[in-house]
Amino acid sequence: MSNGPFLIAGELTSGGHRLVQRVYYEDTDFSGLVYHARYLHFLERGRTDYLRCLGVGQHELLHADEEGLVFVVHRMEIDFKGPARMDDVLTIQTVTEKAGGAKMVLTQEIRRGDALLIAAKVIVAVINKHGRPRRLPEELAQQLLAASVAPEKAAENPLAKT
Amino acid sequence: MSNGPFLIAGELTSGGHRLVQRVYYEDTDFSGLVYHARYLHFLERGRTDYLRCLGVGQHELLHADEEGLVFVVHRMEIDFKGPARMDDVLTIQTVTEKAGGAKMVLTQEIRRGDALLIAAKVIVAVINKHGRPRRLPEELAQQLLAASVAPEKAAENPLAKT
Amino acid sequence: MSNGPFLIAGELTSGGHRLVQRVYYEDTDFSGLVYHARYLHFLERGRTDYLRCLGVGQHELLHADEEGLVFVVHRMEIDFKGPARMDDVLTIQTVTEKAGGAKMVLTQEIRRGDALLIAAKVIVAVINKHGRPRRLPEELAQQLLAASVAPEKAAENPLAKT
Amino acid sequence: MSNGPFLIAGELTSGGHRLVQRVYYEDTDFSGLVYHARYLHFLERGRTDYLRCLGVGQHELLHADEEGLVFVVHRMEIDFKGPARMDDVLTIQTVTEKAGGAKMVLTQEIRRGDALLIAAKVIVAVINKHGRPRRLPEELAQQLLAASVAPEKAAENPLAKT
Repeated sequence: MSNGPFLIAGELTSGGHRLVQRVYYEDTDFSGLVYHARYLHFLERGRTDYLRCLGVGQHELLHADEEGLVFVVHRMEIDFKGPARMDDVLTIQTVTEKAGGAKMVLTQEIRRGDALLIAAKVIVAVINKHGRPRRLPEELAQQLLAASVAPEKAAENPLAKT
Repeated sequence: MSNGPFLIAGELTSGGHRLVQRVYYEDTDFSGLVYHARYLHFLERGRTDYLRCLGVGQHELLHADEEGLVFVVHRMEIDFKGPARMDDVLTIQTVTEKAGGAKMVLTQEIRRGDALLIAAKVIVAVINKHGRPRRLPEELAQQLLAASVAPEKAAENPLAKT
Repeated sequence: MSNGPFLIAGELTSGGHRLVQRVYYEDTDFSGLVYHARYLHFLERGRTDYLRCLGVGQHELLHADEEGLVFVVHRMEIDFKGPARMDDVLTIQTVTEKAGGAKMVLTQEIRRGDALLIAAKVIVAVINKHGRPRRLPEELAQQLLAASVAPEKAAENPLAKT
Repeated sequence: MSNGPFLIAGELTSGGHRLVQRVYYEDTDFSGLVYHARYLHFLERGRTDYLRCLGVGQHELLHADEEGLVFVVHRMEIDFKGPARMDDVLTIQTVTEKAGGAKMVLTQEIRRGDALLIAAKVIVAVINKHGRPRRLPEELAQQLLAASVAPEKAAENPLAKT
């Protein structure tokens, strides 16, 4: 898969969202492998494009009401299971585990082909523009969770979790 | 153009090569705009994928003969003509101006739609694995220059320079 | 503390190691705060300088015997407790919790003055140059753990844990 | 010079400003050398700390009057003369060549010991918060240029240009 066509913002899956990205020089360090903190960039691109594919603009949320709504990473647990290298094509898979109250829990994986390189659990806090916790709107919570249960799409999508 | 299909390594044009990339959080700074050094990352991705589309692997070049062949940036002149912002979709255009002896001269542009944001002239030196200048192989020089003159492709490619 | 004198590689403490670093433009994103993955850079600078202050060169370890010795991050748990901003001066504190067998467990904190911004648990695997687990040399394990118990230095160091 | 004491924001010199910084993992790429765009980060840290040492806060300038004052990089010419490597300690030297009207011209160098690695000319535009050019305040222009001519300090500073 050196140059297939794909969607720039990735695509919704029955399991959440999937994004394809390339490893470039900038992602590597002198060990010859990808610098560990760069995997967090790939994970963040996945989360941003997941919301984009759901039609959720982060700018719009900030100005949706007087309070504003902002997502911030509250906690991450990351297992580094195998290294990525220059020129690799990676798939970033994001799945919503919980969405409600003032937080979202996502599981994210980075794979090269079938090989699992990174497994992460990400707790995202929902705050207002003054930094105080606020509730995730019910509609958005439903939208995120709905993306986790679409069995008819799962059949056609070999990467999706069922 | 928020999520069209495209080629992950970009494509050869009559003018050289064209790559489409997204601006993410990681690319911005607290001014609200893209951090100036990040444009060099986008330009480097363009150069790497240009060689990839020509079938030139940088690993293979390093081991092509006993001397090895490595490309290093020798000089850059960069005009910052306008800012990119979060979520922008950028097109990186690379054109070979000269290729021969121990160097290549490339011109590169970054555009958002029609708007020119970055114009750069990049001088790339050709060295061996011991850091000494060496000649660019004639075949590769021809391949790079040939990509600059393909009028029949230019017609179907509105972004290409003729 | 905008421009006090300090040691470029930080200093050993009774609790491990302490490094002072500045937040620059490159560390921030358009939210106005430090980009979340950048905290991992600060933590890694702390770990690298901790080994440097112990006289352990990572290049030397790689060539210490036929097998070679390399440290890789195996798992991280990171709590993002408060945001850092442009121009902040941060203190990165590293403490060895365990060192032995084929791994090290470190706790790391990033503070701005007294405010705790980041708390992390980092599991570092010890591998050889072929990527296989190998034992941490007993001498280095002792050196890392010894740095955790030096009460007489703790007295003169207000930031150190006792 | 693996761990000498130094000033976190660097220091004013007769030639402008000097800052000492370490190369970490994050700065390198799989070639084993520093990634070319990272040198722009070191240069930017130098410019930021130069203004800091002159007592000029970029936040304060933004709110100094109704118009606001912002510095943006307009053009850079960079010669990459030699590579930096992991663990190197680098000195970033910044000198004001011109300051007046709506721009500043700076020359910047990065050295490892006596070896010149990077030579850059940086044109910085002065704009207001709406992105329009505005004049650099006369007082600040004088302050920047005054830093370029202080022969009595030059004597005690072996790195300064006279």
